[in-house]
Amino acid sequence: MATGGPEIEQLIQLLARLPGLGPRSARRAVLHLVKKKEQLMLPLSAALDRAVTAVRTCEICGNIDTQSPCSICADPRRDSGMVIVVEDVSDLWALERAGVGQVKYHVLGGVLSPLDGVGPDDLSVDALIARAPEFREVVLAVNATVEGQTTAHYITDRLAGSQIKVTRLAHGVPVGGELDYLDEGTLSQALKARTEI
Amino acid sequence: MATGGPEIEQLIQLLARLPGLGPRSARRAVLHLVKKKEQLMLPLSAALDRAVTAVRTCEICGNIDTQSPCSICADPRRDSGMVIVVEDVSDLWALERAGVGQVKYHVLGGVLSPLDGVGPDDLSVDALIARAPEFREVVLAVNATVEGQTTAHYITDRLAGSQIKVTRLAHGVPVGGELDYLDEGTLSQALKARTEI
Repeated sequence: MATGGPEIEQLIQLLARLPGLGPRSARRAVLHLVKKKEQLMLPLSAALDRAVTAVRTCEICGNIDTQSPCSICADPRRDSGMVIVVEDVSDLWALERAGVGQVKYHVLGGVLSPLDGVGPDDLSVDALIARAPEFREVVLAVNATVEGQTTAHYITDRLAGSQIKVTRLAHGVPVGGELDYLDEGTLSQALKARTEI
Repeated sequence: MATGGPEIEQLIQLLARLPGLGPRSARRAVLHLVKKKEQLMLPLSAALDRAVTAVRTCEICGNIDTQSPCSICADPRRDSGMVIVVEDVSDLWALERAGVGQVKYHVLGGVLSPLDGVGPDDLSVDALIARAPEFREVVLAVNATVEGQTTAHYITDRLAGSQIKVTRLAHGVPVGGELDYLDEGTLSQALKARTEI
């Protein structure tokens, strides 16, 4: 039971539901918060309050931002004619951190997974098909999993017949990766897609 | 830079300062929060607000609670005459979870560490010495580190001459532990302190 009263116990239980935290690390986190009340707990509480009211999902691409359309969709310099389709907002953020350029995005919100009951209507595929004519190229940056590839095939089929170029991310050796640790599929794809030096 | 606006970026940076979370897991945590806004983000924000106003440090033992004296110090059933001295509030909580009984506690707030400039005045040793005459027995449950043992010696010296019994936790094989994985110090202590079956 609670050693520090119901308020602390509840905070621990809520923090323990975050990915990467369990009951033990949530307890450590709460103790840390309490010890750093001025420097961390108060600012975190304020930041969370602000985020609760400010955060919204972009009505166009599905990104998370404090405005809708999001800052990416609203950015007039992003007129490269390329839209990158990702499964999740975290993938969009990862691509942005990688600085892939002045592109736009479309967040599917998952992948097709018949076993889990996820069909096309559960993803924002229709919205993507509706947006697609704005772009010259649709890059399918879904994960290299079976479900991801199934989703990529489905979207490719839906876009067939239009003039839009549909591409996917290259497979190959990760930068800094060692061949010895790579699976056979990646290696054979990397060999097939070899480039001249 | 921020992909989701300054509010989200700030929340990520603050969460990344919690123990056990780094920038990457903080970003995942924030995405999770935003996706589960109703079920998790709002309750967490409210719980944090409540905790900020309610949490205080017990003026007697140093425990963290929503009242001072804390619920342990204020509990009249805890009259066993035993006080357990711990380094940190997390140790107190661990002992309470273990259900060690109707004891009281004293949180030192650290251990003596001359190299880090932590002397007796930085810990609540004086408060412990002042409280000690209330109890028949003082159990020094500091960590089995060099600093912990130094602190235990120092407190034992300060209590020398009083009628109070000073004890420490037993060393030995952890319950469920395998001998093969234990260090020599623990094994030799466990053999020395062997008990008849």
